[in-house]
Amino acid sequence: MLLDVLYLVAIVAEAMTAALSAGRRSMDWVGVMLLGCITALGGGSARDLLLGHYPLAWVAHPSYLLLTAGAALATIAVARFMHRLRIVFLVLDAIGLVVFTVIGCTIALDLGLPFVIVIVSGMITGCVGGVLRDVLCNDVPLLFRSELYASVSVVAGCLYVGGLHLGLPHDPVMAVAMAAGLLLRLLAIRFGWNMPRFVYTRDLH
Amino acid sequence: MLLDVLYLVAIVAEAMTAALSAGRRSMDWVGVMLLGCITALGGGSARDLLLGHYPLAWVAHPSYLLLTAGAALATIAVARFMHRLRIVFLVLDAIGLVVFTVIGCTIALDLGLPFVIVIVSGMITGCVGGVLRDVLCNDVPLLFRSELYASVSVVAGCLYVGGLHLGLPHDPVMAVAMAAGLLLRLLAIRFGWNMPRFVYTRDLH
Amino acid sequence: MLLDVLYLVAIVAEAMTAALSAGRRSMDWVGVMLLGCITALGGGSARDLLLGHYPLAWVAHPSYLLLTAGAALATIAVARFMHRLRIVFLVLDAIGLVVFTVIGCTIALDLGLPFVIVIVSGMITGCVGGVLRDVLCNDVPLLFRSELYASVSVVAGCLYVGGLHLGLPHDPVMAVAMAAGLLLRLLAIRFGWNMPRFVYTRDLH
Repeated sequence: MLLDVLYLVAIVAEAMTAALSAGRRSMDWVGVMLLGCITALGGGSARDLLLGHYPLAWVAHPSYLLLTAGAALATIAVARFMHRLRIVFLVLDAIGLVVFTVIGCTIALDLGLPFVIVIVSGMITGCVGGVLRDVLCNDVPLLFRSELYASVSVVAGCLYVGGLHLGLPHDPVMAVAMAAGLLLRLLAIRFGWNMPRFVYTRDLH
Repeated sequence: MLLDVLYLVAIVAEAMTAALSAGRRSMDWVGVMLLGCITALGGGSARDLLLGHYPLAWVAHPSYLLLTAGAALATIAVARFMHRLRIVFLVLDAIGLVVFTVIGCTIALDLGLPFVIVIVSGMITGCVGGVLRDVLCNDVPLLFRSELYASVSVVAGCLYVGGLHLGLPHDPVMAVAMAAGLLLRLLAIRFGWNMPRFVYTRDLH
Repeated sequence: MLLDVLYLVAIVAEAMTAALSAGRRSMDWVGVMLLGCITALGGGSARDLLLGHYPLAWVAHPSYLLLTAGAALATIAVARFMHRLRIVFLVLDAIGLVVFTVIGCTIALDLGLPFVIVIVSGMITGCVGGVLRDVLCNDVPLLFRSELYASVSVVAGCLYVGGLHLGLPHDPVMAVAMAAGLLLRLLAIRFGWNMPRFVYTRDLH
């Protein structure tokens, strides 16, 4: 219920921020829609391909495609006002990350997969959409370079799966895992927390 | 019959134009063959992965791999004459787009998928090969930036599926859909028709 | 037995060299681990997706993920000493190529696929990990530009499958195929053997 609503909010928010990335590359309207759909739905699609979990969400629910393509297109009209909503979109993106993570974990749990794969399934669901966006925009993925993002997904996933494993009731566990992930992500943005970098300048070859 | 012949012509043409892209990046002969195969067969492969439609075309028909790899390799020998055939290749590429689109729609129809997914299946089949080519050449995909390409696929797909839905006979519907898509694509090239661009210069972050 | 040990050595070596690539792009620790896992396990994953061969190796054996992520992370600590081991890593990478190739061929043979696909399955297993690494580092894949790499995989695969087809005993055939591939790769590195390049400077469009 709530998770379904949050999922729809999250894919709309992801499609809209991806549309801005498309605009920064001067893509045309088709590119804006495609990048919006791929970013919003790519994480779940990658998870489903890797786990052999068919049909993919957007194949079973084509309305997700229409919703994300429409949100990306609408972004063209409202982009000039979006910078005032910068904080709103950062929060929505963080909500998307934890919602995608929990959904990815749930699907892997339902498939009876081991703990490590459940966490990875959450991380793939939360993170791969942004990686696809960056690759298609010809950037080194932000995920690999900056900020706590994949780590937030791992923390939220571990809290969620760990809580369920301890036999705690589902809804409070999910709420706590998502709240903790969201808080960690927003604190990381606010205070500029980063993972340490690995800088290597020598050529191996 | 005719569709099968056109399919073979189309994958050969796609492999040859991809080989020229490889040459512009000074790839070696292996790279030329790989890029030819991936460009020609990547759209159908992406569709089959996303729809869980196994085996993939080239796994069932390895001759497609040999044909596209051979066409890419032959391009190295004939490249110096190809610029005189520029128009021929533009037309062949446009034929490829509508042939791939119709094949992609047919496969999704056979799987009993909903209308939106049938159109998307056609678009993926027609367009993803070129996206893979551009990503592997380290470019922002042309599909996202320029010309009527994905839109042509959507128009041809809608005419094809719409005609069938109205109970019209298959072969004339297919011929009209493909001819209309081909005409639209060639007019778009001739008169430089583009989708409007979305240019956004402000940083969200 | 021996193949299993060599496989583990190979994925560790691939993860470590990928970690150095991540370091050259100043990725953070999460990026180092992700790039290590994707490079080491991406070839086999691509093969399994394309052949519909589920579950993927790392889903069935999550320890592979932990091993490669750990190896990538450990590389950060030992990177300063690795340039002295340059030759060791070149040899390990070459061993990885032939081991991955033989494993990829074996899986396709078990699925009863035709000869061409068996060779391609070996090549995908051996080569796609490096392509993913280069795409995520925003480079034109090295595989497409330089050295005998895919060709080595094809030679090793043909020797292996050809030998089995002639009814020769499995273990000596495998040993000879791997040794020949390894030798060819090391000679290619030592003497700078390259495939000829295709250089094309004219614009088709």
